Amino acid sequence: MAFSKKRRYDRTEQDNEYFQCYSDITVHEEMLSDTVRTHAYRVAIARNRNALLGKTVLDVGAGTGILSVFCAQAGASKVYAVEASAVSQLAREVVKENKLEGQVEVINSPVESAEISGQVDAIVSEWMGYGLMYESMLSSVLFARDKWLKPGGLIFPYCANMFIAPINDTTVESRLDFWSDVKDMYGVDMTCVQSFAKKCIMGNDLTVCSVYLEHILSHPVNFASLDLRSATLDDIANITGSFTFCCYGSSLMHGFAIWFSVEFPGENGIILSTSPYGEETHWKQTILYLDEEVQVEQDTQVKGDIKMSPSENNPRHLSVTINYSIGGGISRTKIFQMGN
Amino acid sequence: MAFSKKRRYDRTEQDNEYFQCYSDITVHEEMLSDTVRTHAYRVAIARNRNALLGKTVLDVGAGTGILSVFCAQAGASKVYAVEASAVSQLAREVVKENKLEGQVEVINSPVESAEISGQVDAIVSEWMGYGLMYESMLSSVLFARDKWLKPGGLIFPYCANMFIAPINDTTVESRLDFWSDVKDMYGVDMTCVQSFAKKCIMGNDLTVCSVYLEHILSHPVNFASLDLRSATLDDIANITGSFTFCCYGSSLMHGFAIWFSVEFPGENGIILSTSPYGEETHWKQTILYLDEEVQVEQDTQVKGDIKMSPSENNPRHLSVTINYSIGGGISRTKIFQMGN
Repeated sequence: MAFSKKRRYDRTEQDNEYFQCYSDITVHEEMLSDTVRTHAYRVAIARNRNALLGKTVLDVGAGTGILSVFCAQAGASKVYAVEASAVSQLAREVVKENKLEGQVEVINSPVESAEISGQVDAIVSEWMGYGLMYESMLSSVLFARDKWLKPGGLIFPYCANMFIAPINDTTVESRLDFWSDVKDMYGVDMTCVQSFAKKCIMGNDLTVCSVYLEHILSHPVNFASLDLRSATLDDIANITGSFTFCCYGSSLMHGFAIWFSVEFPGENGIILSTSPYGEETHWKQTILYLDEEVQVEQDTQVKGDIKMSPSENNPRHLSVTINYSIGGGISRTKIFQMGN
Repeated sequence: MAFSKKRRYDRTEQDNEYFQCYSDITVHEEMLSDTVRTHAYRVAIARNRNALLGKTVLDVGAGTGILSVFCAQAGASKVYAVEASAVSQLAREVVKENKLEGQVEVINSPVESAEISGQVDAIVSEWMGYGLMYESMLSSVLFARDKWLKPGGLIFPYCANMFIAPINDTTVESRLDFWSDVKDMYGVDMTCVQSFAKKCIMGNDLTVCSVYLEHILSHPVNFASLDLRSATLDDIANITGSFTFCCYGSSLMHGFAIWFSVEFPGENGIILSTSPYGEETHWKQTILYLDEEVQVEQDTQVKGDIKMSPSENNPRHLSVTINYSIGGGISRTKIFQMGN
């Protein structure tokens, strides 16, 4: 696994007068460079050309405005591009450069206080964070839906699915081996650091990294689904599900990987997947490490349930609680955090 | 250039009750994996075996304790391993594992309040931060020197040198080109974002990344030196120097790279260099971008002066002011920050 842990730009940051120039441009470059993500939106919107022609669309968290431009290009007669941060200035320039000032109105405001006249036919938003819900803007999307979306209006994407699988992680082993290798490298025995290093590496932080397919230990389980046409704030604050895995074969199990997909409206609906079986996205996968690796064999059962909710300290951070038992062993509980 | 920007662990953080487990172990793993760094200390200490035999050493910011162990292995009869953070627990275990409890005493305290009886014959410390002075512990080393080091005692390392060179950076060009490529990728013209992106990428943040040799535009200049045997707090808070470069040939100049080396006592003294001409270290190099790239030709003169000091807001952060003129053009000033 390639190690990576990177904070996503908090797009509704209160302090939006101070424009964190460098990180902003890097984050937007990263999101636009993610062709899996951006192509999925582009194709999904283009395929709904008939449904969007002459209609009004609200883009929640528009960023540099590309999704709003996609909607206008698909024939929407009016697009509200709502962006809370100063990046909205760039969205305004992009709209002008594409000669769409007549169709796209950029509004520099949190969506909760945006002034939008009348109702909209569709909402488009790229609200997904790491592990789906880390620093996600989904509550803003639901707010916009309840306030402005016409009954039966479209939501891009309209549903999200969460997946989980048990994994092996050779990175953990090689990082722990490092501490016993110090003796050969420098003549100092540091093997004693291993147990502390394991406590750190297999800790309570949710880790974002890419899972290699050969490290997945069983058929993944779709443990939860959210229908954004009807989901409530309560629903998105308590995403729960259960799983039963039957392991492929003999391996060390170090933890679980979770990932998500979202689906767009329309026949032959487009799916944007962050699965390790698909092309890599900037979301990669999110890892939950056990405290200790466990040996599994072919047909070892791994059972449990999982709950994702906002952290108590900060609603934009993520807390994940997992209960599991391996091979009929005792049930264990571990609570993870992202962003604390 | 490979882009990288990573905060170094603040080893004298006030809040050391909360042990940031994950980042700690990752930072110590990174420092020990840096074989240029760790071998330099090991060899420099071993070559001073005669000077250290039966002597007392103070290790300022001992971390996991490896430098203290090197000193004990070289024959020091007493080593004070002073470490302010909870990592000192690991240092204690390492000392025990190497059966050096008799020689090495781990003290969990900032060096400023450490209780050390009598004077010491040598001070060892790996205090260097990005760009030498970012989050550096050098002021603690000088404090320890003035309070405990015997007259004529050794300091490992005993001096530091700062270097600067003008550079080309093809990463800047390719990152700017990205915004004009969006049109081909997704059918949306985003070329207008380029000027903002340039302002961000060539901004006022000091950037840590690896400089390729082919991007260095002239012979580097050693613009400042610090003799740690005599330097005062004032000296290290005002590192200044001047430079005159004569460019190798035709190129776009995007900015300056700075780096450092430190020297250890002894004949055939060991030098730990973070130069782009040497093997890469975890410090890499630090980049100062101009606001706009400038065309230079063979023998174009680039002249100026540079000043490094602690940031006004936070003394552990770094501020760098550079005055320069290129090809006899007007003199410009740019102020950079790391950590704000």
